[in-house]
Amino acid sequence: MATKTVDTRNIRLLLEYDGSRYDGWQKQGNTDNTIQGKLEQVLSRLEGAPVEVCGAGRTDAGVHAEGQVANVHLTGKDSPKQIMDYVNQYLPDDIRVLEASEVSERFHSRLNAAGKIYVYRVDMSPKGSVFERRYVYPLGQELDVEAMEQAAALLVGCHDFRSFCTGRYSGKSTVRTLESVRLVRGGEKNERLEMYFEGNGFLRNMVRILAGTLIETGLGKRRPESMTELLEAKDRSLAGFTAPAKGLTLVKVLY
Amino acid sequence: MATKTVDTRNIRLLLEYDGSRYDGWQKQGNTDNTIQGKLEQVLSRLEGAPVEVCGAGRTDAGVHAEGQVANVHLTGKDSPKQIMDYVNQYLPDDIRVLEASEVSERFHSRLNAAGKIYVYRVDMSPKGSVFERRYVYPLGQELDVEAMEQAAALLVGCHDFRSFCTGRYSGKSTVRTLESVRLVRGGEKNERLEMYFEGNGFLRNMVRILAGTLIETGLGKRRPESMTELLEAKDRSLAGFTAPAKGLTLVKVLY
Repeated sequence: MATKTVDTRNIRLLLEYDGSRYDGWQKQGNTDNTIQGKLEQVLSRLEGAPVEVCGAGRTDAGVHAEGQVANVHLTGKDSPKQIMDYVNQYLPDDIRVLEASEVSERFHSRLNAAGKIYVYRVDMSPKGSVFERRYVYPLGQELDVEAMEQAAALLVGCHDFRSFCTGRYSGKSTVRTLESVRLVRGGEKNERLEMYFEGNGFLRNMVRILAGTLIETGLGKRRPESMTELLEAKDRSLAGFTAPAKGLTLVKVLY
Repeated sequence: MATKTVDTRNIRLLLEYDGSRYDGWQKQGNTDNTIQGKLEQVLSRLEGAPVEVCGAGRTDAGVHAEGQVANVHLTGKDSPKQIMDYVNQYLPDDIRVLEASEVSERFHSRLNAAGKIYVYRVDMSPKGSVFERRYVYPLGQELDVEAMEQAAALLVGCHDFRSFCTGRYSGKSTVRTLESVRLVRGGEKNERLEMYFEGNGFLRNMVRILAGTLIETGLGKRRPESMTELLEAKDRSLAGFTAPAKGLTLVKVLY
């Protein structure tokens, strides 16, 4: 980075993508099929040298985004609009830059993020809408939304969410603040349930495990009150299933 | 049909499908990959004998439906709801029965249809929404909607639409009544244009040629007033391009 000094501009990108056919956001070694990898490929071509794109949220394989934020340091003279048009022209049609703007050199999309909003979409009808089938989990069963709301209320707040994450966090804090969980019924026949999760940070698979646990509550397999013990147990094996990636979308990154 | 008498019930189906990977509605010989074919496969299994499904509109390859109507004569004792659940269970996830009901033996989904509403969706932004990319034509250019509305007004009414169809209609009437054309801007950034066409019947490719001709008008390649000559010419080669199938959706069949 020592060679880039005066001429570097920090470009912030607002992105949407259909994650269905990708291995998630974060770049992986050789056989790369990630959102970050696709973006870096196109931006490196524009730059004429390898660039690194930093994303606010490392979405899992199959997870979508309506409002992912990323930033990249570029030396060229193109305006943000020109950069956006160039990138959109060469990106595959399931990834799109919605906005590009020049921001302070110090802006870091991940470290500066104050929070994120995710939505988990469930279809309760026997067979979900064909037009949204890639973005909604086809549960096919009716949910007791009131019970889920009771459970959600116990999860909101600052807690150790160790029961609600996978992967190793040894030595690292698993305390996060879940600002709110909002359950919204929708769809033409009211058969869609959208669960909005807002928090200052999410652990690995946390939203999907929260969604899975709430779904089990809505199916009557768990009592809403049991959420308190579940948080206290700090044991992943006691929480619900990890709801499928396709139902999850990163809606917004908060700064 | 002589063997089916007392016990036959006429079941009407309301259907939606994502036509992307199909060769259209209408069944084709051996290598069948059509909506009608998929439906007949599943319904024949339920019936225990071959059945024929009659659809209101023969949508082209790649065209979608939010409200196709079909009917089928069945001998079984299952309720319409049971039939719907059975069919939805075995149909691929891009075809769905929305409603099933028992109707008069004389009901014929195509012959009794009084009209149809189609929508043609265009995205004017440089790159369209990733979530709707299968259902919208990514034009990527701004359209003069006012000019298109002027042109549309001249097309509405009872006309010979021979300039706006493909295929042979020798000896057959190509006169149809286009009840209305409604242009609606939408999408988050107002970059989507939806063209609704309502008519008593549509010729082969008619909606897509109407859409293509209006798009060319919106791009300034045709004068709105030229629509009158175009209708009079009765010559397909003078009308606009056939807009891509993916942008077209059968919204509703009117009875």
